[in-house]
Amino acid sequence: MAYLKPTLIALLIFLGFITSAFSQSPQGYDLWLGYSKVKDLGLLNEYNDRTNSIYFEDGGEILKAAKKELSSSLEKMLGHIPQFNASRNSKNTLLIAKTATLDAAMAKALSIDFFQMGSEGFAIKSIPHKQKQIIVITANEDIGILYGVFRLLNMMQQNKSLSDVSILDSPKIDIRMLNHWDNLDRTVERGYAGFSLWNWHKLPEYIDQRYIDYARANASIGINAVSLTNVNANALIMTPMYLEKVRALANVFRPYGIKVYLTARFSAPIEIGGLATADPLESKVQDWWNQKANEIYTLIPDFGGFLVKANSEGQPGPQNYGRNHVDGANMMAKALYPHHGKVIWRAFVYSEHDSEDRAKQAYNEFVPLDGQFMDNVLVQTKNGPIDFQPREPFHPMFGAMPKTPLMMEFQITQEYLGFSTHLVFLPKLFEEVLGLDTFRNGKGSTVSKVVDGSLDKKKISGMAGVTNIGNDMNWTGHPFAQANWYGFGRLAWDPYLSAESIADEWLRISYSNNPAFVKPVKKMMLASREAVVNYMNPLGLHHIFDTGHHYGPGPWVSELSRPEWNPTYYHKADSKGIGFNRGPSGSNATAQYAAEVAKTYNDLKTCPEEYLLWFHHLPWDYTLKNGLSLWDGMALKYQEGVDQVEEMIATWNNARPYITNEQYQEVQMLLKIQLKEAQWWRNACLLYFQTYSKKEIPEGVEKSTNSLEYYQSLKFPFAPGIRPQWN
Amino acid sequence: MAYLKPTLIALLIFLGFITSAFSQSPQGYDLWLGYSKVKDLGLLNEYNDRTNSIYFEDGGEILKAAKKELSSSLEKMLGHIPQFNASRNSKNTLLIAKTATLDAAMAKALSIDFFQMGSEGFAIKSIPHKQKQIIVITANEDIGILYGVFRLLNMMQQNKSLSDVSILDSPKIDIRMLNHWDNLDRTVERGYAGFSLWNWHKLPEYIDQRYIDYARANASIGINAVSLTNVNANALIMTPMYLEKVRALANVFRPYGIKVYLTARFSAPIEIGGLATADPLESKVQDWWNQKANEIYTLIPDFGGFLVKANSEGQPGPQNYGRNHVDGANMMAKALYPHHGKVIWRAFVYSEHDSEDRAKQAYNEFVPLDGQFMDNVLVQTKNGPIDFQPREPFHPMFGAMPKTPLMMEFQITQEYLGFSTHLVFLPKLFEEVLGLDTFRNGKGSTVSKVVDGSLDKKKISGMAGVTNIGNDMNWTGHPFAQANWYGFGRLAWDPYLSAESIADEWLRISYSNNPAFVKPVKKMMLASREAVVNYMNPLGLHHIFDTGHHYGPGPWVSELSRPEWNPTYYHKADSKGIGFNRGPSGSNATAQYAAEVAKTYNDLKTCPEEYLLWFHHLPWDYTLKNGLSLWDGMALKYQEGVDQVEEMIATWNNARPYITNEQYQEVQMLLKIQLKEAQWWRNACLLYFQTYSKKEIPEGVEKSTNSLEYYQSLKFPFAPGIRPQWN
Repeated sequence: MAYLKPTLIALLIFLGFITSAFSQSPQGYDLWLGYSKVKDLGLLNEYNDRTNSIYFEDGGEILKAAKKELSSSLEKMLGHIPQFNASRNSKNTLLIAKTATLDAAMAKALSIDFFQMGSEGFAIKSIPHKQKQIIVITANEDIGILYGVFRLLNMMQQNKSLSDVSILDSPKIDIRMLNHWDNLDRTVERGYAGFSLWNWHKLPEYIDQRYIDYARANASIGINAVSLTNVNANALIMTPMYLEKVRALANVFRPYGIKVYLTARFSAPIEIGGLATADPLESKVQDWWNQKANEIYTLIPDFGGFLVKANSEGQPGPQNYGRNHVDGANMMAKALYPHHGKVIWRAFVYSEHDSEDRAKQAYNEFVPLDGQFMDNVLVQTKNGPIDFQPREPFHPMFGAMPKTPLMMEFQITQEYLGFSTHLVFLPKLFEEVLGLDTFRNGKGSTVSKVVDGSLDKKKISGMAGVTNIGNDMNWTGHPFAQANWYGFGRLAWDPYLSAESIADEWLRISYSNNPAFVKPVKKMMLASREAVVNYMNPLGLHHIFDTGHHYGPGPWVSELSRPEWNPTYYHKADSKGIGFNRGPSGSNATAQYAAEVAKTYNDLKTCPEEYLLWFHHLPWDYTLKNGLSLWDGMALKYQEGVDQVEEMIATWNNARPYITNEQYQEVQMLLKIQLKEAQWWRNACLLYFQTYSKKEIPEGVEKSTNSLEYYQSLKFPFAPGIRPQWN
Repeated sequence: MAYLKPTLIALLIFLGFITSAFSQSPQGYDLWLGYSKVKDLGLLNEYNDRTNSIYFEDGGEILKAAKKELSSSLEKMLGHIPQFNASRNSKNTLLIAKTATLDAAMAKALSIDFFQMGSEGFAIKSIPHKQKQIIVITANEDIGILYGVFRLLNMMQQNKSLSDVSILDSPKIDIRMLNHWDNLDRTVERGYAGFSLWNWHKLPEYIDQRYIDYARANASIGINAVSLTNVNANALIMTPMYLEKVRALANVFRPYGIKVYLTARFSAPIEIGGLATADPLESKVQDWWNQKANEIYTLIPDFGGFLVKANSEGQPGPQNYGRNHVDGANMMAKALYPHHGKVIWRAFVYSEHDSEDRAKQAYNEFVPLDGQFMDNVLVQTKNGPIDFQPREPFHPMFGAMPKTPLMMEFQITQEYLGFSTHLVFLPKLFEEVLGLDTFRNGKGSTVSKVVDGSLDKKKISGMAGVTNIGNDMNWTGHPFAQANWYGFGRLAWDPYLSAESIADEWLRISYSNNPAFVKPVKKMMLASREAVVNYMNPLGLHHIFDTGHHYGPGPWVSELSRPEWNPTYYHKADSKGIGFNRGPSGSNATAQYAAEVAKTYNDLKTCPEEYLLWFHHLPWDYTLKNGLSLWDGMALKYQEGVDQVEEMIATWNNARPYITNEQYQEVQMLLKIQLKEAQWWRNACLLYFQTYSKKEIPEGVEKSTNSLEYYQSLKFPFAPGIRPQWN
């Protein structure tokens, strides 16, 4: 075997090459699609056996994308180029084909109700076939095949055995959507991961590889819709020059089952249409929208539709013309209807001319309109009645509009959750909201059942997430913020998944399958959201962030032009106590909930303490359930939040042996910022509230070495994500 | 040898892994430091032999960085972890040590004048040593070792044999500097590669890997200074909060021999110092700068100094107080002097209140001040008298201030050269300017000799490049724009290098050593700058770009508030002819040059035709050297530029077999944009100038299918790199 020797030397040289020399993607670029080599030899053998001969049905661009993903990822995970077999035969070990093309024997062996899979679902099943086991991935439509392929790869990345695989899954929500708040100058409102992915200047000709990788990542978690532009919209996006660019993106996304939406500025007929009005009851205006829709669909036949922020925070809308939301939404819905397009109309409205509790205004405006919207209109509602706070009770509109599809709007970007320097696992927040009971159709009427449409048998359902994605190398700024993108997608697919299972999946496919890593880090992730509540807004406090940029604490801010933009509006601290009375003796916002819920929130005995100061103004010496006074309890909650970040740091230090040095360093640097800022929050808030409570900082809480004046003096004119001037 | 079998199988699996499965860095991230595996087996053997046992002198952070670079890059190029030997012994094949530690025998064998290497130079030499050849890298200082290591790696990337290596090299220019025009909100004035690398929000705690890779890339080409912030400066950069962030970056850059500079806003004493004035002759103001310098140097002991744009385009300066540039620069220079800091004072000035030809104003303001600046002041002058046009004659200040160090300011970012979608190899432009003869000390008084200080024996010299670097994945937007960063660095090190040799180096280390690739693509690069001159500004035309953003043609723009901002100011087209008369019968700008140069430019017989309309207003039927009328010749030049882009596309298509599909696609998409825009330039300019010439478009020039009105109607409100509103 002397002839082997030079080869062997060459091999050994290559082997050295392998171990560490290849330049990897820069930190985090691959997201959860790194497809690292399977290290367990037994599993590697199993996967090799199961993918030994693959039949992959030929087809259009979606099937091509699925096959390409399977091929390149198997190559990475298994270490060799997988063998695709052009024909269906007895050698096949993995067969991927649509249900319509399965032969009768195989269809029978699968024993699946194909109808149940719907248009986007899939099955992955190991069945006996011609004297051996074969894995079949099948679906009614191409997109189901793509999703099935991604699920198989996900399982393999998690090092799950495929021997007895038997999965039938389909999305529980129709529109699973990312909302980009990206401006045409590439700034991103509330973006903390760099700038917009969309390089409008180089589009339509130049297709950045990131667009494709973005689509792959979305498809891997089932996201099927993206709105490209800021809800504080610019009408220029609907001019021919920009529509060509939008078309180029739509072409990139189509093979991944993703539809493009745009934000429609209500006054566009004036700004780019040359009309004198945008009154939705004017036929000229209606014609303009009809023609604009025709123009768009000529370019983009599967265009998703419009996302609209109207009569909110200065955006124009139908009320400018004495019309209401139905008038506005239905005008656009009529234009889109012939093309199967949707209008997603945001319910995030509150008026500077309405002295009513801001938490009540959206409900007051929208609930009376239930049943009047066209079938292709969805009303998109933030999870809580104020604005993406670390914790809010659920929005009272959920369950209160049985005839209107209510789309959930979560915020994935961490506007009020520490930007992209705080590790906060948001699926815990999402899970909490989705699991809350509206009691609208009796006990068990959870928010998830409203959102997936099952509670009132809605014809269409949707969930949107305001993305945390930017052009940072790792897409989301904080590597753990990738888990929030991932987790949003998973919950949009199935709102009944647990945050715990999502954290488990994500850690395994992003970092390591080693239980010694996964177990403690998962615990850290699951505790992280409560930590941020504790060190920012404990016990139901909310919206006490510094002005404009929302970076850091600003409970003292009280002089903004609109009262409801001032933190003092929300905490109402005074010498007697603190909190917003939203019960019958206060704003009576609780009356917007079902009676059972209102009763629970109104009664101090039953109101969960995490909502205490959301619903009640209480004296500083009010006794909490743990026997502490409100002041002491609040102070200790702030301290608890800080302590929790210290624990996160300890956990991450212990995780060091299981990850690369770069992975370790990156998160460690960020956790140090998080700790510094948690202390800043604790100190600034306690020093400020102390001016009202006149009480000592209790034992167990670290004292601030800086003064309140110091914290009040801090200015951050260039904090990222600042919203542009409203029009 | 049966025991080998399982290993062999494993090896084969790994081998499959190698061939294509590893995820590479996303397109272009690695710049010219990809260190791809050496494919030539003979060369691989040679390199393996030569690096078989490496002695690397221990030392501080610069030597550690050099050793790390050597180690990781050899691993990538050779496929195995290199062996470092802790002691100097007879086994060493590569010895890297400072001159002071070389033993006498080796020092003698090197037969190098160590003094000649200076503080930044190095030698790489193969010498006989203990019965065999050994390669020695030596230098007087740590930084020379780093540069030497990078040079060795560069040679290896170019697949050069090391057998007879004998290099002694040292930089010919002292300050080799990048100027970032980066704002604190991360927008970049004239930036076309995304946004600022500097993530001020996450600094100082979070150190992005990009900062390190940026420093590596700069060090690899000898850049030793960076100014972090826009010359249109914000005083906040000098507040304690930001200085902590600057310090963090300085700490990252220090191991790579790079000093940090900041742009100093002249009115900072008012804006952040609480003073009522910034008058440089006021002692309070002087004290403020002195104290600010002390504060900065306490944080950053090797801080480079200040880069200042004063009394230019609205920036404050000494003239606001009736003082002159010397008063302003020397005030800062005194503050920095005790710390060995420099003031780099920009000469880019022109006044809206001065009706004099803009091309003359900088000379008029600065030349009389020669000899009055302190020793630690450099005056930074753009290459030409207007503003980074595709072609300008050299700036008349070069050679005209024998007692003042004149620093060259080149623009690497393509403000007037097609942004980051046009392939333009700028070293051709830089080489042209550096090679022009000022005749100030007789024939051969080239601009390069002014810049390197040799012409008038300056004590200090510098060259600055306004960078094209942003947070795009590939750093520069266009992959070939990396060559402009690279080429600038090489020319700042040695202004006598040829553009041809730089293109050759860069192509080899960035793409491929295959001559079938290098030869035609190099030819394309070398022709690219003339192409852009032809399709934008032929025959000496200049500054006919659209307003503000400078994207695309705007020769018709005539209504801006400042006359010298209007393209019509520069081309002066009328029914008789076109061009700016800068001879004695015109603005007499030529009188600012040495008599020999003035004579050449004044005389139509000797004035190079590439400067024709820069210096002369000529009738439309003026006869060019090729016998064509000016009108026909101009039209054919525009067409020639378009044709050249067509040729570039053909060249790139032919290069396809030698590069990856991704590499091919990326440039191909960009060349298509370039072609479209070249046609746009040709059509728009010829249609507009035709309104004056009243002549037919000559044969051989494609006719526009769009009207002049169409081109004039184009608006690009979100073109990248727009300068913020001037203060």
